[in-house]
Amino acid sequence: MNFVDIIIKKRDGGKLTSEEISFFVKGVTDGSLPDYQISSLLMAILLKGMDAEETAQLTMEMANSGGMFDLSSVEGFKVDKHSTGGVADTTTLILAPLVASVGVPVVKMSGRGLGFSGGTIDKLESIPGFRVDVTEEEALQFGREGGIVLMSQTDDLTPADKNLYALRDVTGTVDSIPLIAASIMSKKIAAGADGIVLDVKCGSGAFMKDLESAEKLATTMADMGRHVGRKVTAVISGMDQPLGMYIGNSLEVMEAIEVLKGNVSGDLLEVSLTLGANMLLLAGKVNTEEEGKALLLENIRNGKGLAKFREMLMQQGGDVNIIENYDLLPLSKVKLEVKAECSGYITKMDTAMIGRASQETGAGRMFKGQPLDFGAGIIMKKRTGGAIATGETLAVVYSESEEKCRSAADFLQKAITIEGNKATEQPPLIWKIIRQED
Amino acid sequence: MNFVDIIIKKRDGGKLTSEEISFFVKGVTDGSLPDYQISSLLMAILLKGMDAEETAQLTMEMANSGGMFDLSSVEGFKVDKHSTGGVADTTTLILAPLVASVGVPVVKMSGRGLGFSGGTIDKLESIPGFRVDVTEEEALQFGREGGIVLMSQTDDLTPADKNLYALRDVTGTVDSIPLIAASIMSKKIAAGADGIVLDVKCGSGAFMKDLESAEKLATTMADMGRHVGRKVTAVISGMDQPLGMYIGNSLEVMEAIEVLKGNVSGDLLEVSLTLGANMLLLAGKVNTEEEGKALLLENIRNGKGLAKFREMLMQQGGDVNIIENYDLLPLSKVKLEVKAECSGYITKMDTAMIGRASQETGAGRMFKGQPLDFGAGIIMKKRTGGAIATGETLAVVYSESEEKCRSAADFLQKAITIEGNKATEQPPLIWKIIRQED
Repeated sequence: MNFVDIIIKKRDGGKLTSEEISFFVKGVTDGSLPDYQISSLLMAILLKGMDAEETAQLTMEMANSGGMFDLSSVEGFKVDKHSTGGVADTTTLILAPLVASVGVPVVKMSGRGLGFSGGTIDKLESIPGFRVDVTEEEALQFGREGGIVLMSQTDDLTPADKNLYALRDVTGTVDSIPLIAASIMSKKIAAGADGIVLDVKCGSGAFMKDLESAEKLATTMADMGRHVGRKVTAVISGMDQPLGMYIGNSLEVMEAIEVLKGNVSGDLLEVSLTLGANMLLLAGKVNTEEEGKALLLENIRNGKGLAKFREMLMQQGGDVNIIENYDLLPLSKVKLEVKAECSGYITKMDTAMIGRASQETGAGRMFKGQPLDFGAGIIMKKRTGGAIATGETLAVVYSESEEKCRSAADFLQKAITIEGNKATEQPPLIWKIIRQED
Repeated sequence: MNFVDIIIKKRDGGKLTSEEISFFVKGVTDGSLPDYQISSLLMAILLKGMDAEETAQLTMEMANSGGMFDLSSVEGFKVDKHSTGGVADTTTLILAPLVASVGVPVVKMSGRGLGFSGGTIDKLESIPGFRVDVTEEEALQFGREGGIVLMSQTDDLTPADKNLYALRDVTGTVDSIPLIAASIMSKKIAAGADGIVLDVKCGSGAFMKDLESAEKLATTMADMGRHVGRKVTAVISGMDQPLGMYIGNSLEVMEAIEVLKGNVSGDLLEVSLTLGANMLLLAGKVNTEEEGKALLLENIRNGKGLAKFREMLMQQGGDVNIIENYDLLPLSKVKLEVKAECSGYITKMDTAMIGRASQETGAGRMFKGQPLDFGAGIIMKKRTGGAIATGETLAVVYSESEEKCRSAADFLQKAITIEGNKATEQPPLIWKIIRQED
C-alpha cells in the first residue's frame, strides 16, 4: 500500500477503506510512517472530514493499537465518563463515588491536565498518599471489592493516540471533529467500560465554543456507539462560567467533598447528578434520568456517597483525614482578594481567560510535564447574572508568590464583564442530551 | 512568530502576510522548521489556496533563498523559457540557438528530467564531450560572446524549492497551482532573465490534463510578472500526442538538429517558433508574433540557427561533428518495430503512457538519480488523426535489451487508439497565449 495514494485520496475528498485506515494507524503506532506524511494526512482529514464509518474504524484501530483493559472479572455493567474539559469541572470526583455507591461499578482511567487546571489525576495527587498508578490487577481487585477506582492511564493504552495527539498539537490539526472523537472514544474503548457518558462542554471556557460544533462532536461520538458495540450518551453542558466555585487541584478536591457532604448545591452538583444519572440509565439501574438523580441525591443525604469516596481513598492509600480536616490538603500561602472595580451585573465571564488566570497561579500547566502547584488556584465568589457592588470580592486567588497572585488577578479582572443595571438572561446549564439510537 | 498559528491561519482560509511567508521560507531553507509542520502547511495551501499576492511573495522568498544569478554583464534583454514538461518536447534545443542567432541572448539553466524522458540537461549530456556544469563566470562569458549558454542549475539556486519539492513529492502536495507556480517562477527569477516565456502543456501527456487547470496555472504565472518585476508570457500548448517524432535523449538531439537544418516541419517546429517568437516579442526585438516567427524561420533557412547551435557545442566542449554525423551520438543496439494490430484512424494517444513506454526503454527516469540510457527511446511514425493499416509501423523502439523493447512496445500498443473509418477532429496545438497585462 502506498501511503501517498492514501493522502491524495483523502485530499481529494475520498472515503478511506478499513484497510487504508488500518495501514495508517499501524504506521503511526510502530513508527514506520514518517511524521511529515502523517501530518499531511491529518490536515487533509481536518479539511475534508471523515464519515461515521471511517471515524468508527479509525477509533477501533486506535483502541486496538495497544493493550485493551479487560474488565470482565468485575461484575455488572461498567460505566465510564469523559469530559472534553472545562474550568472548575470536578464532576468525576463527585459522581464516581456516588454512582459506585448505588451499585454500578466505576473503574475509570483519567489523564493529567494540560490547560486550565489539572486533570482528575492531578487533583487526586494533591491528596497526601493517594496512589494513581495502580496496576491493572489492583484496579480489578478494587473494582470487584468497592466498585470504584480512579487511576491514571496504563502506559500501553492507545499508543496510536499518544503519537497522533503529539503531532496534531504542533501541526494545527487539533480542531477536527473526527480526530477528536476518535481520540476520546479510542481511549474509553481501550479502558474497557460497557457504557460511556460523555460531557461535551460548550461555551467560552470549552474547546467547543458554540452549540453547533458541540452538537456535532456529541452526535459523532454517540453515533459511534453502535459501530463499536458500546452504549454511549453525550450530555452537552454549559461552560460559559466556571462550573464550580473552586478552581485548582486541592481546592477542587475540597469542593467535591463539600458536595458529597451535601453542603453545596448549584451548577456543579446539577451537572454531576445529570451525568451520574445518565450513567445509571446506561447501566439499566434506573428507568428515567429523574429516578437516577433522586437515587444519587439520596446517597448524598445518607452519606453513602461520601463513604464510597472514603473507601476509595483507603484503597488507594490516600489520607482519609482530609475529609474532615482540609488543612491536611495543600493550600498556597499567598492569598489575594480580587475586588469589583465597578458596580453592576456580571453579564459574562470569559471562562478561558479565567482558566488562564488559574494557570498563572500554578494550578494549571502551560506546557506538558510542567509540575503543578497543588495548593494554588482560585475561589470564585460570584456567578454570572448576579449584581455586584464596587469593592465587593469577585474571587480569592491563592499562589506561592504575590507576583503570581497579581498576574492571575489581572486576568480575572479582564475576564469578568460588569455592566448594566439589570440581570441578563444566562445560557442554559444543560444544553442537550444526545442518546444513541438503538 | 509561532508557526502553528501560521498553519492554522491558512487552514482556516486566511491570507498569509509577507512576514509569515518569509518566516516559512526561511525555516524551509535553514531546516529550522520540522518537515511535519511544513507538510501540514503545504496541505493547507493545496486545499485552501493562495491569492496572487501571497503566491508572488512566496515566489520571491524562494527565489531569494539561495544565490541569484546576476546577468547584468550580458548586454541586452535576456529571455528565458520554461516548459511544464511533455513527451518529445525538445523545443529548447531548437529555439535557444534560433533566438540567440537573432541577437537576443539566451542564458538558460535547465534541470534533469524525472519522468517521460530526460530533461534538456540529460539530452545535452548525450552529446559526447558536452559540459553542462559550466561555472557562473564561464556562463557570463559565453553569454557575452555568443549570446547562448544552456547549463545545469547552479547548486545554490533556490534551496527552498529543492527542500519543498522533495517534501511535496512524498506528501501528496504536488498538485497545487500556487505551489507549482512558485516553484517554476522562483527558479526562473533566481536564474536572472529579464523576460520569461512559459510553455504550459495541456493534455493527456501533461501535468495539466485540461484547459481549465492549464489556464489557471498560466494566468497565475503571467500575473506574477508584475509583482516580481519580470516580463512573462505563457503559451498553452497541446500535449495530446508527442510533440516531436523522436522521444529520448540522443534521439531528441538528432530531431532538434534536423529542425535547425530545415528538414523537419510540423508541431515541434510550430511550437518552437511560437515560443521563440514570443521571446523576441518580450525582448522588444519584434512587434508581432508573426514577425518573430518569420525572423526565426529565416535563420533556419539561412543556417544561422544551426551555426549558433554549433557555436554552443564548441563553447561547451561538445563534439561538433555530431551535426553532420549522427552515428557519433549514442543509439541503443536493440531495435523493435511496433506495428498496427488493426486498421482505422488513430483517434487518440494516451501520451503519458507513451512517456511510460519511453521510461521502459531506459530513456526516462523512474526514480531520482537513476542513470539514463542516452541512446534509448522511441521514433514515432504516426500522428493522431491519420489513417493506418494493419501491419503498418506505428513506432520504432530502441533499447539495450529485447525485453525492454517488448515492454515498451506493449505500452505503446495500449497508448494508441485505432478505430473508426474517418479522421476525427484533433485538439489545437496552441490553445491560448496569455500575456501579462501592463
